[in-house]
Amino acid sequence: MAESFDPTTAPTLADIHAAAERLAGVAVTTPVLSSPVLDARLGGRLLVKAEPLQRTGSFKFRGAYNRIALIPEADRARGVVAFSSGNHAQGVAAAAQMFGIPAVIIMPADAPQLKIANTRSYGADVILYDRATADPSQTREAIGARLAAERGLTLVRPYDDAGVIAGQGTVGLELAAQAQAMGLTIDAVVICCSGGGLAAGVAMAVTASMPMAEVWTAEPVGFDDMARSLATGERVANDLRSGSLQDSLMAVMPGEITFPLLTGRQARGAVVSDAEAQAAMRDAFFHLKLVVEPGGAAALAAALSGKVPTAGRTVAVIASGGNVDVATYCAAIAG
Amino acid sequence: MAESFDPTTAPTLADIHAAAERLAGVAVTTPVLSSPVLDARLGGRLLVKAEPLQRTGSFKFRGAYNRIALIPEADRARGVVAFSSGNHAQGVAAAAQMFGIPAVIIMPADAPQLKIANTRSYGADVILYDRATADPSQTREAIGARLAAERGLTLVRPYDDAGVIAGQGTVGLELAAQAQAMGLTIDAVVICCSGGGLAAGVAMAVTASMPMAEVWTAEPVGFDDMARSLATGERVANDLRSGSLQDSLMAVMPGEITFPLLTGRQARGAVVSDAEAQAAMRDAFFHLKLVVEPGGAAALAAALSGKVPTAGRTVAVIASGGNVDVATYCAAIAG
Repeated sequence: MAESFDPTTAPTLADIHAAAERLAGVAVTTPVLSSPVLDARLGGRLLVKAEPLQRTGSFKFRGAYNRIALIPEADRARGVVAFSSGNHAQGVAAAAQMFGIPAVIIMPADAPQLKIANTRSYGADVILYDRATADPSQTREAIGARLAAERGLTLVRPYDDAGVIAGQGTVGLELAAQAQAMGLTIDAVVICCSGGGLAAGVAMAVTASMPMAEVWTAEPVGFDDMARSLATGERVANDLRSGSLQDSLMAVMPGEITFPLLTGRQARGAVVSDAEAQAAMRDAFFHLKLVVEPGGAAALAAALSGKVPTAGRTVAVIASGGNVDVATYCAAIAG
Repeated sequence: MAESFDPTTAPTLADIHAAAERLAGVAVTTPVLSSPVLDARLGGRLLVKAEPLQRTGSFKFRGAYNRIALIPEADRARGVVAFSSGNHAQGVAAAAQMFGIPAVIIMPADAPQLKIANTRSYGADVILYDRATADPSQTREAIGARLAAERGLTLVRPYDDAGVIAGQGTVGLELAAQAQAMGLTIDAVVICCSGGGLAAGVAMAVTASMPMAEVWTAEPVGFDDMARSLATGERVANDLRSGSLQDSLMAVMPGEITFPLLTGRQARGAVVSDAEAQAAMRDAFFHLKLVVEPGGAAALAAALSGKVPTAGRTVAVIASGGNVDVATYCAAIAG
């Protein structure tokens, strides 16, 4: 696959299975958690795929590792560059470290300090930029493209890349297999959504074996570009560029590759407030004993707040990450 | 086994395997977590068996369910009684609810509010007592024995019972199998210890397949009855009755059944301070994304603080529970 791989086209189901083989023994097969208390409250069966337990504390490691594995060896040795508010940064940095290659990570200056520190801890060179800049030469995309050209680095995109989407799709392969092992068929799968890499990959993998499963994305209020795009069938952008507690879900608009993969599966968008995300973090603390960050809790919040119907159904949600500062976490769980 | 079962003698390895069969599909097969950051810090391989992810938030559900399953059906229908500072209470209450039988739980009045509330949420009748009482008719043991006689309830002891020890031992069966699947042999297993039910069961199960594994108990400073007993070969009691942040590890002395199971496997005792337990909770928050309560963090603390040698070794620790109030948790992770 590495020889003929084109990251700019949609991945196939075979690409996701190939990613799963590459990630075997490297990524964690994260457990599916559940809570009798939450099930009783919802009147349904809630399955929580626990990606905070993934290497680097989020699903992003999967896509990053798979994508780097697909770079031809001579190019790979020169290193990679990525831009990210945090979890993709950590995923790329950790994967690059495992391959023994340099990584330059471009992060917004207002990203959580924990995510910046963690990214540096994996040996990456972190460059900070101003998320609100009006200078087109100083956007993260411009900085990334420039570095890629100057140093011969390969750009690892956060979502609009077939190798990245295929890696994230392994979450869905595992989830479907785990549900099947429990004797359950998933009626709906809810996925935290920024650019849509995780959502597209999981949607592909889950509907491949459970074609009747509804696909839902979950986004923050004010950053609901995917929900609005899915509703109209046209990719639209957010007006806001910053300001959500759900810091990992602030992509400007759906990806070119990810969006058709979701519309093709009749995906719908749920939108959750920061308070709903905090309530979901609190429920995860009490009933799942799982540390979830605000953006990582969006899908759980969509189910717990009733935005995705759960009564009498089996609803799977992806808890996508757990990289959160102590102050932010404790404010959420104190309720 | 139910017909001929004698809870007052030591369980056998076959009893642990029988418990595993009873618990299949009922208890969670909890994952083994690890962290490259913690491994690098210790210069070894740390495996964390994540029992906070167990039903009711601690391993106690395993022993309680297995013990209740072993009560002859006619007796079982009348119900069960248990005394516990919290996690055994929740385990027995939840298991009784699953069997559809009454449960009376006798808890110290100073137990964490969360544990009292959770126990009630499983439908149990909770009776509070004064942990510091000098009146021998008002100890938890006396109250429990009285209720058992009056109402025909079966007393489910927290640790000194073959059925309970066998249930807790399933943690060790799973751990050994999971380590083997990772291609690892456990050099030392460290187990949070109160009366020693979990420690004895895990020691039996792990050393059965990995006979060279060292067995370590972990206890709070001031409640190190097991460590002192193991050092001298004689069961000795603690002077203190309350006062540790590690509230789940305050049994007065090692059990009559559990103690010989540990001395027979050359177990050693590690003793950790509350500050060390808090530091372990903090590391679990940042690097494992797992919520661990103070007493549930004792074994992890023993490894992270260097009390159990880890350099160049594979050390497995049981994170035994995650039922903790928000204020206690946030004080710990704030560092």
